[in-house]
Amino acid sequence: MHKITTIRELRSVVAEARGEGKLVGFVPTMGYLHEGHASLMRRSREENGFTVLSIFVNPLQFGPNEDFERYPRDPERDFALAEANGVDAVFIPDVSEMYPGTYPIRTLVKVAGVTESLCGASRPGHFDGVSTVVAKLFHIVKPDRAYFGMKDAQQVAVLEQMVQDLNMDIELVPCPIVREEDGLAMSSRNVYLSPEERKQALVLSQSLRQAEEWLREEGGQVEAVKAKITEAIQQAPLADIDYVELVDYPSLKPIVRYEPGNRLLAALAVRFGKTRLIDNRLFESL
Amino acid sequence: MHKITTIRELRSVVAEARGEGKLVGFVPTMGYLHEGHASLMRRSREENGFTVLSIFVNPLQFGPNEDFERYPRDPERDFALAEANGVDAVFIPDVSEMYPGTYPIRTLVKVAGVTESLCGASRPGHFDGVSTVVAKLFHIVKPDRAYFGMKDAQQVAVLEQMVQDLNMDIELVPCPIVREEDGLAMSSRNVYLSPEERKQALVLSQSLRQAEEWLREEGGQVEAVKAKITEAIQQAPLADIDYVELVDYPSLKPIVRYEPGNRLLAALAVRFGKTRLIDNRLFESL
Repeated sequence: MHKITTIRELRSVVAEARGEGKLVGFVPTMGYLHEGHASLMRRSREENGFTVLSIFVNPLQFGPNEDFERYPRDPERDFALAEANGVDAVFIPDVSEMYPGTYPIRTLVKVAGVTESLCGASRPGHFDGVSTVVAKLFHIVKPDRAYFGMKDAQQVAVLEQMVQDLNMDIELVPCPIVREEDGLAMSSRNVYLSPEERKQALVLSQSLRQAEEWLREEGGQVEAVKAKITEAIQQAPLADIDYVELVDYPSLKPIVRYEPGNRLLAALAVRFGKTRLIDNRLFESL
Repeated sequence: MHKITTIRELRSVVAEARGEGKLVGFVPTMGYLHEGHASLMRRSREENGFTVLSIFVNPLQFGPNEDFERYPRDPERDFALAEANGVDAVFIPDVSEMYPGTYPIRTLVKVAGVTESLCGASRPGHFDGVSTVVAKLFHIVKPDRAYFGMKDAQQVAVLEQMVQDLNMDIELVPCPIVREEDGLAMSSRNVYLSPEERKQALVLSQSLRQAEEWLREEGGQVEAVKAKITEAIQQAPLADIDYVELVDYPSLKPIVRYEPGNRLLAALAVRFGKTRLIDNRLFESL
């Protein structure tokens, strides 16, 4: 497995693989990899002859009071997990390799329409940082397919919009959320949780699981289900709700009533102490 | 020569050329081609095995009171000129092919720092439209090199910034301004000029030519030279000055005094009746 820090070397390694007729799969990450990332690597390996994983904690997508500095990092463990899951090249650039000129960067890729609600409302500028760094990585790696976890459902919606609007010749492959045995969605940020927070955080996945039943009970009335999810989360004394939203997917537009044939995204963000967790569930048929 | 209206067909024709090991050169235009465009086509043909010319009057880069509707169009003449200059494929998509979804498009590529002054000041949103459509075209054509005329010097500076910031793997090739025999910079918009306006428009190229002498006379003092250019243009009764600027190139930052070794761009925009003309001259050594 190649471990690569420069754009120049990565381009050359990918060009070589392509010269051998291989399709290129790409898994962009911020590192501190877990089983969710591993599922993306395996999917890419199944579908492509060459898989690139990037590890880059992108400062552009963090707000001034967010956790950029303390975001967990463990490259050696990441390399081992990548290798074990069949990754061919890990790209792990410094900030100065990705942003060599003026910082913040002068060029932004800005997606409108799907970035204003949910996480976009509480993290202004976050999705500009995401779409810009992913556009850069796409231009560097030039993959045929790129793999993203549905835990970040809004991110997937934003990137789908970007790829479509800018005619990027790349297939985005959204992959299912991977959960701990007790249901907590895997996240690099779970490591921040105290034992008590970790226990109470189960309320997220539990309320989302119950939402299916509530949707049936309430005849698809979104506000009523939202109230029930909110109430369930508030049972956890340490939970501080950022948002609970039920919206159309992938437009993320508000809907009043869930109808079969629609796709409904139930998404939430909740703080436990300093840790902000997100989780969601996509309802495609009931 | 291929005449292509769909993205799908263009991708396939370019992929075939690339499969034959050819480098791909790209000349993006708004059509109504003249000898300036022809010089770009010939340069691309010299340097690449396959040349794509696009003809697309991009609504996104026109303001609400600008000349999008009346912008001159003559595809048949354009095809003949492209063929005569060795173009392999002309891409001439409809607006609905380039903007199939919500319009205005939801994703913008926005370049800061070089877009606020000069033409950016009098045409708000113009360069967002340019950078966005060029990013789209780059993703569609995937050229090795792209050719742009230096008449649009600010456009070249903006696109250089975009390519660098977003790690696009494309070489931009800026090409010299092509002029009519009497000095007027070639432009599709010259066709709008009445005979009297056409005559008076010569003041643009003439004052820029004299600027070299004035720079020497004034010891490189930018304000003094700017005043002389302005005064010269005001001698033409039909000339209505939008701006006259002398700035560093390619940063487009203001400078007080031209020093040898710097690059100084003298740029101007002047209206004659309803027609807005631009011209410039780049001083790299005196």
